Amino acid sequence: MSEKIRIGIVGYGNLGRGVALALWQNPDMELVGIFTRRAPADIDAPDASTPVLPVDGLTDRRDDIDVLILCGGSKEDLPEQGPALAAHFSTVDSFDTHARIPEYFEAVDGPARAAGTTALISGGWDPGMFSINRLYGEALLPDGETYTFWGKGLSQGHSDAVRRVPGVAGGVQYTVPSDVAVDAVRSGSRPELSTREKHRRECYVVLADGADAAEVEQAIVTMPHYFADYDTEVHFISAAELGRDHGAMPHGGFVIRSGTTGAGNAQVVEYRLQLQSNPEFTASVLVAYARAVHRLNRRGQVGAVTVLDVPPVLLSPKSPETLRAELL
Amino acid sequence: MSEKIRIGIVGYGNLGRGVALALWQNPDMELVGIFTRRAPADIDAPDASTPVLPVDGLTDRRDDIDVLILCGGSKEDLPEQGPALAAHFSTVDSFDTHARIPEYFEAVDGPARAAGTTALISGGWDPGMFSINRLYGEALLPDGETYTFWGKGLSQGHSDAVRRVPGVAGGVQYTVPSDVAVDAVRSGSRPELSTREKHRRECYVVLADGADAAEVEQAIVTMPHYFADYDTEVHFISAAELGRDHGAMPHGGFVIRSGTTGAGNAQVVEYRLQLQSNPEFTASVLVAYARAVHRLNRRGQVGAVTVLDVPPVLLSPKSPETLRAELL
Repeated sequence: MSEKIRIGIVGYGNLGRGVALALWQNPDMELVGIFTRRAPADIDAPDASTPVLPVDGLTDRRDDIDVLILCGGSKEDLPEQGPALAAHFSTVDSFDTHARIPEYFEAVDGPARAAGTTALISGGWDPGMFSINRLYGEALLPDGETYTFWGKGLSQGHSDAVRRVPGVAGGVQYTVPSDVAVDAVRSGSRPELSTREKHRRECYVVLADGADAAEVEQAIVTMPHYFADYDTEVHFISAAELGRDHGAMPHGGFVIRSGTTGAGNAQVVEYRLQLQSNPEFTASVLVAYARAVHRLNRRGQVGAVTVLDVPPVLLSPKSPETLRAELL
Repeated sequence: MSEKIRIGIVGYGNLGRGVALALWQNPDMELVGIFTRRAPADIDAPDASTPVLPVDGLTDRRDDIDVLILCGGSKEDLPEQGPALAAHFSTVDSFDTHARIPEYFEAVDGPARAAGTTALISGGWDPGMFSINRLYGEALLPDGETYTFWGKGLSQGHSDAVRRVPGVAGGVQYTVPSDVAVDAVRSGSRPELSTREKHRRECYVVLADGADAAEVEQAIVTMPHYFADYDTEVHFISAAELGRDHGAMPHGGFVIRSGTTGAGNAQVVEYRLQLQSNPEFTASVLVAYARAVHRLNRRGQVGAVTVLDVPPVLLSPKSPETLRAELL
């Protein structure tokens, strides 16, 4: 057995905690430390032996860490941390502001190339595994359409939007794909589907004292961008019910490529995720890609990369010989 | 636009015909010729302008062909053609005798390395896309089980076995996955499933004149290896019905990884194919991997490779920049 891959975690929310848990399932990797901007004493580390340290001293640890897994947010943390840390370490992150990925790629690529590090951006499932499956779908079936459905799952952005409505004391939002739409796509008929036909939205809302339920419901279902284009259900529940029934973070979805080959034969390829914990699955993806990043860096492939650039074989702890014998 | 990738097809049965059709859907590639051991005049070429030539003269065409797609069978053709042709050309094939893949890999690797060619073996969907998904599944969810279901689909091997039974004038066999078993796996419960619980087998049989239906049925359902371990249905039909209703070659299946992360969260990843034409889909996979093989060879990655070694980005005709902007 070769030496373990030494991992550092930067940022310790739901995703960082998921990475720590995932590392326990991967005996070829070890957690060197958790690096945080908060007071280290405030961090509930996964076990007593894991050092929790201020992020400020991180660049002194270059010789102790093979790959940093960046678990901060795409809005505030990664645009600054990604380029800065890629100048010192090989990194993996889950930058997921889709429209800004090309710009973020360039921002990370320069420092990584200059430093000889390898920085994988936008890992996870969407972007991430869903992106890989979109690519396979269109490369294998050039005459076709790609459909993405999300859910059933808790949407953080839409839950935040619900909670900003006056009169709302708490709440969550689930994105729910339409069974009718999914079945139509699976049939190979290549339907044209409107936004409203693909997904509906379910909100579970705790009213503030004295708030008017009808007014709150109206404010939610007519909210532009978030809800106006969808069929939205609003269910009012108690704070106790919210805590009891809506604390989990399930998610998932489908990427379906429906194509035609030869003389009109329908071919349908589907990739589906059903996740009881969205952050723990995202974390598991980041950990597997940390292994790949370490290997890419040893091969001399430096600079920014994405999941689209990574040969599947590099994700596994097993040897190529074993994988050929077991999986082909 | 750079120059087109020049493709040769070796062997022209259902798979070779599928490759010719798939090449029309990929404008960055062109078909240089079909090479056959049969009399070229006997080949029903996809269009009048495609040269059909004897395979014997193939090695004189090294300067005209970038990648050969080998469409022969795994039993008779590829064990000989794969190593021999990899000594002159970059190649893609669909060698699918699972147990002999490691040995075939070695047989192709030596001549390919010596010649500086790149030879992708065992492309298609199983082995192939299913293998990739088994790898992603176990790498992302180390604590888990992988399940493969095949069908509903026409099995060539089992159809041949049916046709060898005395008293059978013609017939086909469909492998059918059990909905109950698939649903149990999708639930995340990680069931243990016997061979009989996972699939059943449906045979459509034309009796020879004077044959006894009960005897034929008994001979089929008790046949060791092929049918004895399954629930098998035998339907007797006319030769006209066989020709009318059972001429297509549908297939497909599921690779499902059911795993657990963190404190017991079930995570289920599913990859599913529903194919109206098995050979045309396999052909489409081989064509996309021919593009990748050409690029790997230009990068200097020579020798035998499999789909597990190929970065997804190399399969697409689009640039990495475009793919990042569109798919991530």
